[in-house]
Amino acid sequence: MKVKPKGADEIMDIIQGGVTAAKGFEAAGVEAAIKYQNRKDMALIYSEAPCKAAGVFTSNMVKAAPVLWDKEVVAHSPAVHAVVVNAGIANACTGKEGYECCKKTAKAAAECLQISEDAVLVASTGVIGMQLPVDKIAAGVRQLAEKKKDTTEAGQEAAEAIMTTDTVSKQVAVTIEAGGKTVTIGGMCKGSGMIHPNMCTMLAFITSDIAISKELLQEALSEDVKDTFNMISVDGDTSTNDTLVILTNGLAGNPEITSKNEDYDKFREALNYINTTLAKKMAGDGEGATALFEAKVIHAKTKEDARVLSRSVISSNLTKAAIFGHDANLGRAFCALGYSGVEFDAGLVDLYLENDEKSLPVFQNGMMIDYSEEEATKILSSPEVRILADMKCGSAEASAWGCDLTFDYVKINADYRS
Amino acid sequence: MKVKPKGADEIMDIIQGGVTAAKGFEAAGVEAAIKYQNRKDMALIYSEAPCKAAGVFTSNMVKAAPVLWDKEVVAHSPAVHAVVVNAGIANACTGKEGYECCKKTAKAAAECLQISEDAVLVASTGVIGMQLPVDKIAAGVRQLAEKKKDTTEAGQEAAEAIMTTDTVSKQVAVTIEAGGKTVTIGGMCKGSGMIHPNMCTMLAFITSDIAISKELLQEALSEDVKDTFNMISVDGDTSTNDTLVILTNGLAGNPEITSKNEDYDKFREALNYINTTLAKKMAGDGEGATALFEAKVIHAKTKEDARVLSRSVISSNLTKAAIFGHDANLGRAFCALGYSGVEFDAGLVDLYLENDEKSLPVFQNGMMIDYSEEEATKILSSPEVRILADMKCGSAEASAWGCDLTFDYVKINADYRS
Repeated sequence: MKVKPKGADEIMDIIQGGVTAAKGFEAAGVEAAIKYQNRKDMALIYSEAPCKAAGVFTSNMVKAAPVLWDKEVVAHSPAVHAVVVNAGIANACTGKEGYECCKKTAKAAAECLQISEDAVLVASTGVIGMQLPVDKIAAGVRQLAEKKKDTTEAGQEAAEAIMTTDTVSKQVAVTIEAGGKTVTIGGMCKGSGMIHPNMCTMLAFITSDIAISKELLQEALSEDVKDTFNMISVDGDTSTNDTLVILTNGLAGNPEITSKNEDYDKFREALNYINTTLAKKMAGDGEGATALFEAKVIHAKTKEDARVLSRSVISSNLTKAAIFGHDANLGRAFCALGYSGVEFDAGLVDLYLENDEKSLPVFQNGMMIDYSEEEATKILSSPEVRILADMKCGSAEASAWGCDLTFDYVKINADYRS
Repeated sequence: MKVKPKGADEIMDIIQGGVTAAKGFEAAGVEAAIKYQNRKDMALIYSEAPCKAAGVFTSNMVKAAPVLWDKEVVAHSPAVHAVVVNAGIANACTGKEGYECCKKTAKAAAECLQISEDAVLVASTGVIGMQLPVDKIAAGVRQLAEKKKDTTEAGQEAAEAIMTTDTVSKQVAVTIEAGGKTVTIGGMCKGSGMIHPNMCTMLAFITSDIAISKELLQEALSEDVKDTFNMISVDGDTSTNDTLVILTNGLAGNPEITSKNEDYDKFREALNYINTTLAKKMAGDGEGATALFEAKVIHAKTKEDARVLSRSVISSNLTKAAIFGHDANLGRAFCALGYSGVEFDAGLVDLYLENDEKSLPVFQNGMMIDYSEEEATKILSSPEVRILADMKCGSAEASAWGCDLTFDYVKINADYRS
């Protein structure tokens, strides 16, 4: 279940921290009382050195105002210096007033930080349909600008401030060597409902001091998302606010990466580790979840087939409820492979139930075989459960991550706004 | 919320009963102890007069053995006389042995009823992966053949025998006039989990004494399914066993319908009423459901757009949980329209919360407006709740039906096999 990129030990070191791990990045988290009381609900990421930015955003036709704002900034701004995030209200379905609010947020940040308005990204998460209280946002921005620091603690506070129904904050950081210099990449994200990214997940921010061209930065991010953030699902609902942004300020001093050389490959691997780790943290902390649920498909005809098949299994409500109940009802997973839209020979498929220690064959050549229910229940009681499907019709593979469907998911979402 | 086909009162009468309502059809339900104890779990539908048959089956790549058997019978048999159904075990993912079991079931029925083996349709519903106990099935068939009757009670017993997690049996029947004769159409079906038909829902059987050509019968059924059974979802899981079959024996004595004349149109409307009623009964009795949840989309660009949009809303776990919680979080429904894959202008959309008596505007031109939470809660407390979306970009409309997502859904499915 552990993410172990090939040769990961040789090319990267996993370190403490998140968005402040890389050189020149500061962060803060404060209580701005946007909607929640007595908890941090606004965060700032800041780099004095100008950053290149790349982003991937929700494919939902209903895009939140900050998504519209950020797409402009990522596409057209010469440099980005800051990201302002609030939790509690999503600023989605808020029309012109909502977009004006993004502009005012950026303006407030620009004044405090003495940067240009179009150097500020904004992001929101929470309830759809409500307007943001602009005065509180502006006051929050002033607090954030005063408080920002480059410490691990400051990064931690930012990661806490962007949480909604998340039960834990989510960060990761690694270092690699590039052009003889140490390059750091760190990130944070939040889930945990309305998670079925079809571009990327709700909110994720990655910072790095690597020097890399803007084109390659965007390409690396867009490619990597297909196997990481787009491979998780909590509830099949693709949010209006999904935002994944990476900022790089070049302070590591490596020779700028402008072609797909060895340094680029290392960066891609490190980025894949960061994204996979954050995506899995999000899936495992899905609303009400008691287990991280992975579906791995091997020997599929094509990579896209493998992706679609594995996503179909982790999105199946029936399979997710069975995982919650520790019931080895793998017929449901088989059924989910079948309705995924991918063509395959059902008479060939093998299914295994797995955790980090054991692999239990349950279906062979499309039929259920004798297996120990006791063993199955033991595996299903692990905090990380995997269903492995061997399609036996090719050489492509993919993994998708989700969580179980529990009473608490229903409880949280039957009563979210009150 | 009521289904009132245009001019329905003029062209049809709703009557008591189900599969035995039409002339010449008998039915039975018996306890065969296939998997359940102390309840009916096998059903028979029988017509001494030879029937034309049309069917629509699951699109799942993993097709249960009875689906494979029935497709052959519907396509190639000169006449159908009987349907044998069992609940408890789905006979899916059971390989050659499973298919052999269908053959043996048909053979047992053929012997008892003195008909040909290929005149027998079989259908199963229940747990995936287990083999059927052939001896018990054969004994059940003998009981059914002895017990069959043409009474309303016999139809009722059959409807009860095919239930799994259904809480109520589901039947409907109507009469129309065709060619100066009274024609009767009746049906029964069962849900209630793994319901997200992509051809039709789990098991539904319709009988009629109408005289109609086989080609037109199949065309009428295939067309109607698009707006009825394919427009419901309980949990997004498309079953391996979905089967919808119609049998017509011509005993009404109407001149055989061989072209799309007035009688055909009446039959289509009656069939639409039957299918819509059964589909809604299934949605409203979804596993754990406390409410029937309808999404109606109007003024969409195309019919297919309207279908996709309405289905996306009733399939959204978040929206379904909000309905359960009587929380007017229509932002989630708006979000579900947005990720449906259909293109539209989010700035135009109006959303209404409705029941049979009231219509409450909640979003206007893409933005939430002031509305009474008290009114909203009152509407959400109805047994039938509708979200109406006005897309304002065309003239097409469609309805889809689902149910709320409840603690009981999770409870039922965390522990289905035990």
